[in-house]
Amino acid sequence: MNDAESDIHVESTGRRVLRELMGEEYLRVKDSRRNDFNDVLQDYAEDVCFGRVWGRDGIDRKQRSILNIAILTALNRTGPLKNHVEGALNNGCTPDEIKEVLLHTAVYCGLPAATESFRVAEDVLRERGLLE
Amino acid sequence: MNDAESDIHVESTGRRVLRELMGEEYLRVKDSRRNDFNDVLQDYAEDVCFGRVWGRDGIDRKQRSILNIAILTALNRTGPLKNHVEGALNNGCTPDEIKEVLLHTAVYCGLPAATESFRVAEDVLRERGLLE
Amino acid sequence: MNDAESDIHVESTGRRVLRELMGEEYLRVKDSRRNDFNDVLQDYAEDVCFGRVWGRDGIDRKQRSILNIAILTALNRTGPLKNHVEGALNNGCTPDEIKEVLLHTAVYCGLPAATESFRVAEDVLRERGLLE
Amino acid sequence: MNDAESDIHVESTGRRVLRELMGEEYLRVKDSRRNDFNDVLQDYAEDVCFGRVWGRDGIDRKQRSILNIAILTALNRTGPLKNHVEGALNNGCTPDEIKEVLLHTAVYCGLPAATESFRVAEDVLRERGLLE
Amino acid sequence: MNDAESDIHVESTGRRVLRELMGEEYLRVKDSRRNDFNDVLQDYAEDVCFGRVWGRDGIDRKQRSILNIAILTALNRTGPLKNHVEGALNNGCTPDEIKEVLLHTAVYCGLPAATESFRVAEDVLRERGLLE
Amino acid sequence: MNDAESDIHVESTGRRVLRELMGEEYLRVKDSRRNDFNDVLQDYAEDVCFGRVWGRDGIDRKQRSILNIAILTALNRTGPLKNHVEGALNNGCTPDEIKEVLLHTAVYCGLPAATESFRVAEDVLRERGLLE
Repeated sequence: MNDAESDIHVESTGRRVLRELMGEEYLRVKDSRRNDFNDVLQDYAEDVCFGRVWGRDGIDRKQRSILNIAILTALNRTGPLKNHVEGALNNGCTPDEIKEVLLHTAVYCGLPAATESFRVAEDVLRERGLLE
Repeated sequence: MNDAESDIHVESTGRRVLRELMGEEYLRVKDSRRNDFNDVLQDYAEDVCFGRVWGRDGIDRKQRSILNIAILTALNRTGPLKNHVEGALNNGCTPDEIKEVLLHTAVYCGLPAATESFRVAEDVLRERGLLE
Repeated sequence: MNDAESDIHVESTGRRVLRELMGEEYLRVKDSRRNDFNDVLQDYAEDVCFGRVWGRDGIDRKQRSILNIAILTALNRTGPLKNHVEGALNNGCTPDEIKEVLLHTAVYCGLPAATESFRVAEDVLRERGLLE
Repeated sequence: MNDAESDIHVESTGRRVLRELMGEEYLRVKDSRRNDFNDVLQDYAEDVCFGRVWGRDGIDRKQRSILNIAILTALNRTGPLKNHVEGALNNGCTPDEIKEVLLHTAVYCGLPAATESFRVAEDVLRERGLLE
Repeated sequence: MNDAESDIHVESTGRRVLRELMGEEYLRVKDSRRNDFNDVLQDYAEDVCFGRVWGRDGIDRKQRSILNIAILTALNRTGPLKNHVEGALNNGCTPDEIKEVLLHTAVYCGLPAATESFRVAEDVLRERGLLE
Repeated sequence: MNDAESDIHVESTGRRVLRELMGEEYLRVKDSRRNDFNDVLQDYAEDVCFGRVWGRDGIDRKQRSILNIAILTALNRTGPLKNHVEGALNNGCTPDEIKEVLLHTAVYCGLPAATESFRVAEDVLRERGLLE
């Protein structure tokens, strides 16, 4: 067994989910930003969010991504929303599904919430060459 | 063509969606509460929410119900949440899926939000004989 | 000058505004609930809210009542909303104006917010014999 | 009847309200940003927000602008707030009225909310040469 | 070693913290309400909230209780707030400290938020014979 | 008595607290930004927030700073949060205490809220040479 394999074998559920959801590069940047202050939050994100919750069956990852687009719109968190629009596309959501979810938030969270989230999603789609 | 058929034919998309989502009884109670003050909101709910948005394809109704459980948890609206947990069950969500969506909100909306929504959902499940 | 007159003359701006907005009975109940724990909040409400802000010119009291109906809907505070729907009626708002303000919140705060506020407002209107 | 006239005649209520509220230039920029992703939101904004709600009588447009300044402060939406401070000035609100509305939010939404909205409003007033 | 001792030794950190914070009776009621639907949330609360976070040093439990009174006021969660006012008193907060924290929220979260939290706290103080 | 002394003697409680909390430079910048539009908010901040509330005994200033870090995280106000992280450090909070408070918010306000606040706090710590 070589080193790379052993690394994979000891990887936590959370890191594996995060890698599959956001990709290698995201994880590499995230790890490079780890420091004595934010280590406790990074561990919390990996263990609790991605390990304990995203790692569960019951609803699939595409469903979790779709939920997050709606939740982060309701909570007015545009920074994390950007990450999860990217994760949603990685998880197989189409731009049309994202559009539909965001229109749905217009009715329930209000038009200003939906307007800001459309703008965030458009930026991601444009960066990926999926719009215009 | 008899009167009942003609009634059905002129029914708006919104009323049809609402009827399929919440059932006859819900619509009957809702109509009986209509008055000179809330008519404008009832029309808005039927035309905009259930006609213009829920009436669309792109994501299915079960998906819209699941979104609402998460959104209403984030927005702290326990009254409307109760209705949409009922709608979710009508739309084919299982208690296990609702449980999974609510656990997901614990991470993103915080534990107090999830705790209150679990309580609301438990009440609905118990009323329907799906719990205990 | 008799005692009653002298009482009126030393009354703070905040208490005078509160009396004019909510009526004698409201103030009497409020005073009877004053205790060693909430005194600091009651003083804050009278001095800061009703004295320092409501006591100002620039926008009139009916305008402040209308603002509060919208703000308390956005903030999801149905208890204080009830008081301010009553204050709005005392300040000369018509039921039709309140209806219009609440419909406006449906677009900006979302339908669940407006639905709960319509329900609160309907209760107040019914108590006053202004509905049904 | 020439083409310009016919254009005006078929314009929707929502576009007419939006034009009167925000001006030609705003509408031109908005239209140029329309794409396959956001078209559904732009239609929603025009039909539901500006057509169905802003297009109503009952409260005037200046009143709706004032409401939005308070609502968007409560909802913590500084981007849309900027647009509606501009709309408020277009609708005849004075800087002193806007100041008064924002001070009112300090009591109900909290000081941090009001502080951020004052900053947004100051930027707009400065751009229009109405401050400093 | 008797059974009681062995129970204590295998108890999770989360359950121990919860027991010390809220008391035996609270834990007994909580356990009796555990079912197939909410078990996942109860585990999350014990492991993540009370084990992983409350179980840490760095700030003491009285400080965590005080934080929660402020946070739950800001988040508008009156149900969980009631529990944490009780926890705060169990953790050594005095009614005067709770009063001071709640007055502080009046400035930052707005008066309606503080008003509702004062009411919740008064109810707890009255139940414990600490008020009136 | 010279002029400087007389200035100090007439300084309001609010300005004194603000000076001690945020430093001379902060107050100087703040005063330089005072204008005909924001004067009413600046007075409100000095008199109500820093004079009437921060000026009180009952809980100390370090406690008030810690509360604000949690409250501003819950309210999603990253601009004011930055100021109060600085104030917290001025008031004797250590980076480890700030870290602990922010981890606490992850459970109650949700991970996205904590993530954004960690980023704001890291920026302040880096500016002060307390991180990396």
